[in-house]
Amino acid sequence: MRAAFLGLGIMGSRMSRRLLDAGFGLTVWNRTPGRAKDLVQSGAREARAPSEAARDADVVLTMLGDPASVREVILGPNGVLEGLPSGSILIDLTTVDPETPRELEKAAAEKGAFFLEAPVTGSRPAASSGELVLMVGGEAEVLSRAEPVLKPLSRRIVHMGPVGAGARMKLLNNLIIAVSMQALYEGMTLGRQGGLRDEAMLEVLLSSASASPLLKMKGTAVQNRNFETNFSVKHMAKDLFLAVEEAHRRNVPLPLLMTVHALYESALARGLGEEDIAALVKITEQMSGLNPSV
Amino acid sequence: MRAAFLGLGIMGSRMSRRLLDAGFGLTVWNRTPGRAKDLVQSGAREARAPSEAARDADVVLTMLGDPASVREVILGPNGVLEGLPSGSILIDLTTVDPETPRELEKAAAEKGAFFLEAPVTGSRPAASSGELVLMVGGEAEVLSRAEPVLKPLSRRIVHMGPVGAGARMKLLNNLIIAVSMQALYEGMTLGRQGGLRDEAMLEVLLSSASASPLLKMKGTAVQNRNFETNFSVKHMAKDLFLAVEEAHRRNVPLPLLMTVHALYESALARGLGEEDIAALVKITEQMSGLNPSV
Amino acid sequence: MRAAFLGLGIMGSRMSRRLLDAGFGLTVWNRTPGRAKDLVQSGAREARAPSEAARDADVVLTMLGDPASVREVILGPNGVLEGLPSGSILIDLTTVDPETPRELEKAAAEKGAFFLEAPVTGSRPAASSGELVLMVGGEAEVLSRAEPVLKPLSRRIVHMGPVGAGARMKLLNNLIIAVSMQALYEGMTLGRQGGLRDEAMLEVLLSSASASPLLKMKGTAVQNRNFETNFSVKHMAKDLFLAVEEAHRRNVPLPLLMTVHALYESALARGLGEEDIAALVKITEQMSGLNPSV
Amino acid sequence: MRAAFLGLGIMGSRMSRRLLDAGFGLTVWNRTPGRAKDLVQSGAREARAPSEAARDADVVLTMLGDPASVREVILGPNGVLEGLPSGSILIDLTTVDPETPRELEKAAAEKGAFFLEAPVTGSRPAASSGELVLMVGGEAEVLSRAEPVLKPLSRRIVHMGPVGAGARMKLLNNLIIAVSMQALYEGMTLGRQGGLRDEAMLEVLLSSASASPLLKMKGTAVQNRNFETNFSVKHMAKDLFLAVEEAHRRNVPLPLLMTVHALYESALARGLGEEDIAALVKITEQMSGLNPSV
Repeated sequence: MRAAFLGLGIMGSRMSRRLLDAGFGLTVWNRTPGRAKDLVQSGAREARAPSEAARDADVVLTMLGDPASVREVILGPNGVLEGLPSGSILIDLTTVDPETPRELEKAAAEKGAFFLEAPVTGSRPAASSGELVLMVGGEAEVLSRAEPVLKPLSRRIVHMGPVGAGARMKLLNNLIIAVSMQALYEGMTLGRQGGLRDEAMLEVLLSSASASPLLKMKGTAVQNRNFETNFSVKHMAKDLFLAVEEAHRRNVPLPLLMTVHALYESALARGLGEEDIAALVKITEQMSGLNPSV
Repeated sequence: MRAAFLGLGIMGSRMSRRLLDAGFGLTVWNRTPGRAKDLVQSGAREARAPSEAARDADVVLTMLGDPASVREVILGPNGVLEGLPSGSILIDLTTVDPETPRELEKAAAEKGAFFLEAPVTGSRPAASSGELVLMVGGEAEVLSRAEPVLKPLSRRIVHMGPVGAGARMKLLNNLIIAVSMQALYEGMTLGRQGGLRDEAMLEVLLSSASASPLLKMKGTAVQNRNFETNFSVKHMAKDLFLAVEEAHRRNVPLPLLMTVHALYESALARGLGEEDIAALVKITEQMSGLNPSV
Repeated sequence: MRAAFLGLGIMGSRMSRRLLDAGFGLTVWNRTPGRAKDLVQSGAREARAPSEAARDADVVLTMLGDPASVREVILGPNGVLEGLPSGSILIDLTTVDPETPRELEKAAAEKGAFFLEAPVTGSRPAASSGELVLMVGGEAEVLSRAEPVLKPLSRRIVHMGPVGAGARMKLLNNLIIAVSMQALYEGMTLGRQGGLRDEAMLEVLLSSASASPLLKMKGTAVQNRNFETNFSVKHMAKDLFLAVEEAHRRNVPLPLLMTVHALYESALARGLGEEDIAALVKITEQMSGLNPSV
Repeated sequence: MRAAFLGLGIMGSRMSRRLLDAGFGLTVWNRTPGRAKDLVQSGAREARAPSEAARDADVVLTMLGDPASVREVILGPNGVLEGLPSGSILIDLTTVDPETPRELEKAAAEKGAFFLEAPVTGSRPAASSGELVLMVGGEAEVLSRAEPVLKPLSRRIVHMGPVGAGARMKLLNNLIIAVSMQALYEGMTLGRQGGLRDEAMLEVLLSSASASPLLKMKGTAVQNRNFETNFSVKHMAKDLFLAVEEAHRRNVPLPLLMTVHALYESALARGLGEEDIAALVKITEQMSGLNPSV
């Protein structure tokens, strides 16, 4: 089975490495060429265009920045679609709005190919260790054919429903993350203003029933003022807006989503887009009259 | 070492049982007398008034509903204070505002006694198994003397700072719980309206980095429509308002707290006060035009 | 000077009548044919297609439901553009997103025609009496040529800037209306729950510095439980979402907009879309445990 | 009829002047003595203590900063109550929580005196010109006896209901003002970020149905960056928190109140307490990445 992987950013490069290590013949492509060097040294072939990357693959995976890039790389000139073999499977791992995957499914079908969406949860370390969780939308039969390629990337593959269901799951997962972590920042800021030490607060929180790996990660980031990017503010802001659009499409009133979305807009407006979502604590702090430099 | 325990509700009755099982001589008291029966059969002595319960105790623990009850049972006529022996330790486990513990400390000192506040996190099952987390405010030396009584109740005792710090920690902990769980309900409602099954959503969420024991508990409650009370809406609403007051006292602007507080007011207004906080999902559903019967 | 008017809904039919009464030769068009009858009896000509309506007009005005209808009626097959004479002026009065007018301007220019956007503020009665306020985007020179046609419709014509500026003004105007009126509903609900009579509350409010014609209109509507549509919930909800998108485009965090938008989603979800925006009071009431039938 | 006026701040000094000009014999008192000089030169008598001011008055008016001052000046040592003649009327004009007036009514009754609450709407200029609106709580008969003293102060006297109803009306009036003006600031900030000029925006807004004297006043203040205090941030913040408490007392969920309250907390935290409520625009601006110096 031969795979192609397009998009070698923080996540994509690590996922490509996993596929190589699992023994797949792999063709890679990235808009900026330099990113493929290490992978090529380990045996990957680098294509000069998405269409070329797709040409001889059984499974084509894409992990790109946003719906616009997805459309361009797949549907644009010299895009994946031009080379996509009949009978192959195209899998988009990007977090996109729930409409895009349906377009892609249709486009793939016109070439006699199959389509799955498989947005992921988990960040850099989980990509490196193959412990992502995949939220798959598409037909069950296609998913079972694609599983050999997806297993090296993930510790869990959940079939959410037809194409579009994966994107919806991803959005609601990120909604929950954004709101929960902001709750942490609100709580810690309230505590600090009342004289509590970060260390003691985290000791309680991490031994309480609301302890989660994420709470530990972001709580520690706040404590150490370390905002190195695992999940960037701008990516989360994008997902939150997609969730706002999805909620609007279905008339679901979600006050906490709306509130946290405004805080992410503020973070973007204040130049925090490239930092980790832990940096949202600075918005809470600044509203509290602390941290005037942000 | 002889202990007294006042307040035999859902939590207090289980904590008293732990102390008995740990071998402490125990005097208990509850406003409504019937509650002590099982404990008395196991060797506890039942006092007829708080003052009498305190009379011969080395450590007096109180676990009551709200600040008003705490004041009445401790400071009121025939209250704990009237019987509190010099040199003994009074420990209030109730979740109260950050001002009340300071009053109690002063009152205890006037009797030559010591005071600790020790609000808990964890619900019914953790009370039964002695796996609560205690957020202690008070002097380190007093805490070390009280530890033999606190250990059978808890898997973690965190010293937060002087009296008042425990109450503040409890409030921010509950703020985080209320907001995070509401995020879960918003996410699940958005998913359902988009055709996702609860089961698949929870499979993803519980294998993601935001998985916590609480998320599992409340997610499952929502899936099974089981709103049996572990932590009641009215208690959480009380704590959220205490957090609103604390935030006001220190001018900390907390938009998510404010938003979730309004949703809890709605839950109270709609008669959900006695249900579990998982019932807040009904408010999200109702705003979405579902679940008209609530 | 010959005018064409497309879109004969609540607003458009009244505006067409004003143009007829002012002596303009008028061609009208509406998707559903019956709507033109009265106007035709008063001397208007009814076109069978948008292209035909535009054919011999100096000024073509459109007042349609949403951006999609605008695009279809102007840019679609047999659309306005196909008949738009070189040198004529196309004026879109619909409330749309800030991007649509720029497309229309470009399209008109390709036909040698000119374009203005002129969204309006004011509802049914102001349309009847020619007392709308027009927020015009476009070149000053084009506006001065178009003024004879705009004057019978309006008591104020404000030049906001280049094409797109009018749409932005309209969105922010509606944002202010939606939030202010919701503030009124929150205040009145709080008052009622505290035993105040609507009549006394409105007497104070209408003699205070926050009294406005709108506050009077909606306050009285609430008092009389009369939700006859002047400005429908679904139109406001559409505008609020356009404002959310505009805010997102420019990263402007607007917490009140986000909060009120969620309430409008709730109103749509509960079937209030066709009622007047005064009906939003029912959402506040329902969250308060009142008005269970909504 | 002899009057006493206690509290000679921005509002109180102007109201006292109105009573003097209307020909009432007037005794005044202020905590800081210097404030009475001009009034004394015009014929007022200055008392050295609240009790002394009340001693020979038929009507005693108080206009103080907050509930705590009200309690101290009226109920404290050498307070109004000590001197309040039987049969006299005590009128508190301060904006307080709905509970305080009920205490005052009881206290007055014990002295054989009568009580009205009469919080006002209108700011400095309205106090000078006697154009305040009074929201009176108390018995209708007492109000009709007090009217001669209230008329020189006000253009409208609205009887809201029993004691407490006036305070509630005041709170909801301020809630509406705070939210509506914040809507204005959100709208203007959105417009500015999209290139609209303040002048054009205000021209539309002030000729639209949402135009109010307040919108004109605050819109102009924002346009001119003139934040001279008519109604201070700290007073509004106090009233908003009283509204939050009142809403909590009655379980009325008010999302916009909660949201705007958080913004006022932010304003206090950032040192804007003494500025006019128009300065809240700076919070919206700062969240948008503008105005970093605030």
